[in-house]
Amino acid sequence: MSEKISYFMKKYQDRIESLLLDVFPKELSCDPTVKASMYSLLAGGKRIRPVLMYMVAEMLGIELSCVDDFAVAMEMIHTYSLIHDDLPCMDDDCLRRGKPTCHIAHGEAFALLGGDALLNRAFERVLLSVSKNPNTIKAACCFAENTGILGMIGGQSIDLASEGKKIETGRLCELHEKKTGALINASCLVPYYIYAAEKGEDKSLYDLIRRFSSGTGLGFQIKDDLLDVQADQQVLGKSTGKDQRDNKSTFVTVFGESTAQKMLDDTYGDVYDALDELSSRGFDVTVLRQFSDVLQNRVQ
Amino acid sequence: MSEKISYFMKKYQDRIESLLLDVFPKELSCDPTVKASMYSLLAGGKRIRPVLMYMVAEMLGIELSCVDDFAVAMEMIHTYSLIHDDLPCMDDDCLRRGKPTCHIAHGEAFALLGGDALLNRAFERVLLSVSKNPNTIKAACCFAENTGILGMIGGQSIDLASEGKKIETGRLCELHEKKTGALINASCLVPYYIYAAEKGEDKSLYDLIRRFSSGTGLGFQIKDDLLDVQADQQVLGKSTGKDQRDNKSTFVTVFGESTAQKMLDDTYGDVYDALDELSSRGFDVTVLRQFSDVLQNRVQ
Repeated sequence: MSEKISYFMKKYQDRIESLLLDVFPKELSCDPTVKASMYSLLAGGKRIRPVLMYMVAEMLGIELSCVDDFAVAMEMIHTYSLIHDDLPCMDDDCLRRGKPTCHIAHGEAFALLGGDALLNRAFERVLLSVSKNPNTIKAACCFAENTGILGMIGGQSIDLASEGKKIETGRLCELHEKKTGALINASCLVPYYIYAAEKGEDKSLYDLIRRFSSGTGLGFQIKDDLLDVQADQQVLGKSTGKDQRDNKSTFVTVFGESTAQKMLDDTYGDVYDALDELSSRGFDVTVLRQFSDVLQNRVQ
Repeated sequence: MSEKISYFMKKYQDRIESLLLDVFPKELSCDPTVKASMYSLLAGGKRIRPVLMYMVAEMLGIELSCVDDFAVAMEMIHTYSLIHDDLPCMDDDCLRRGKPTCHIAHGEAFALLGGDALLNRAFERVLLSVSKNPNTIKAACCFAENTGILGMIGGQSIDLASEGKKIETGRLCELHEKKTGALINASCLVPYYIYAAEKGEDKSLYDLIRRFSSGTGLGFQIKDDLLDVQADQQVLGKSTGKDQRDNKSTFVTVFGESTAQKMLDDTYGDVYDALDELSSRGFDVTVLRQFSDVLQNRVQ
């Protein structure tokens, strides 16, 4: 990884980590177990969605402070979705990032409530942003649509309904466009909507960012599926070969490893094309290009 | 029940029922099982919170259309909280309003996701309101705070943490102020904040509405606890004597039936005082007074 991209990733990761700490002020009065459950938010992770949001904001010349509340809210949504996904009635996972999952540590009921609380608190944050800066209302609506039944939750539902069934290619793509893609889309589009509120709508710019984010979301999922069969279990930090065992429909179990690898390369071809076009419009895409390279070639 | 209050209750109930139908437009593309789970929203109920919201709006001279989105969102929040509350890891209830609970009908995973989807969609609605009418942003923030960890979810957490334990009076009141009271507060304060955005903040009006809503919330819970020991099981539509069996801390199990009855009367004394003061300020409180009478003397 080049020094430049390491510098920027660390800069944005440090920014989001310090903002996440503020989600739980000392005076937040609530039951200690539900608070502990909500603390899953601080259990680490690569913070890819907030990092991406900051990178797109900087490319567009938006003040990072304008997207801070959305970056925090995004990570809260991502965390609650993991807590609920790990529950026995869903994936029934005991380990997450090498530690006991939320319901193992705090019980199912508090994991359920802690997840609900994070989801609700994400929107408290989004509304705080809108009350401070009414220019962020379109960004807020885009955020909400992508986290809900038309976005991430919609994808989780298709995933659940498809378990153990043969799934068509179109349906597999819809599943992942929503389940993984929707939050990545929102992470890229929130800065666009704030930009547009200040400088006016720009359909072709929107389309380019949408192309970049769609490719990034799809690529992220294909890479995840490939890592399940290619990665070193120690490096990955979770068990490998799990998708096949769990009878999951993934790009690898449906298309096979080599086709999935080709799909990944094609998808990233499209990501880089979108970045080239953004560059030719005068935007500095150096950081986003290097970050895409990091995502495409990650080993965990 | 007088003809007047029956007329108004039916008017507001009909209004909310027809709005709730629109939550699921035909073109809403999602998995049919999660949609069926979300349809719990349409399974009836007294719609007390939206009805109260409309009554306070009319008292304040606010157009009902200004609170419609919040009324819908409120009922979505109430429904998701019931779905999640009924799950095996929470209250493990099989029946709700005489029908199988959501997880019995659609499985635990879809009940979990359907609940999440309703919670998220409530905020999609709230944000839609803000985007149509920026004057509703303070109402939206009040709504979000009352549904979250500082409100309803906070109350559910205290409830869960208190199960099977002796609970202090102050803690019991905090539990119910949050668990039941927060949504009722928000139902009354949303119209106030819209009024205030149009006509200016009015601290003494806020205090009166807050007094009315606090009493209404507390009274609602004490009455619920009394019905558990006083009601006819057939009329109530759910099993009675359940609180004692489940080792729940309620106003009846903690204070005894006669003290709880006195607390109910005192609480409604305060509710009527607040209404009298609102009336002396020139607001027409006839409907709210009759509705309070209905709530205080309900048999189910």
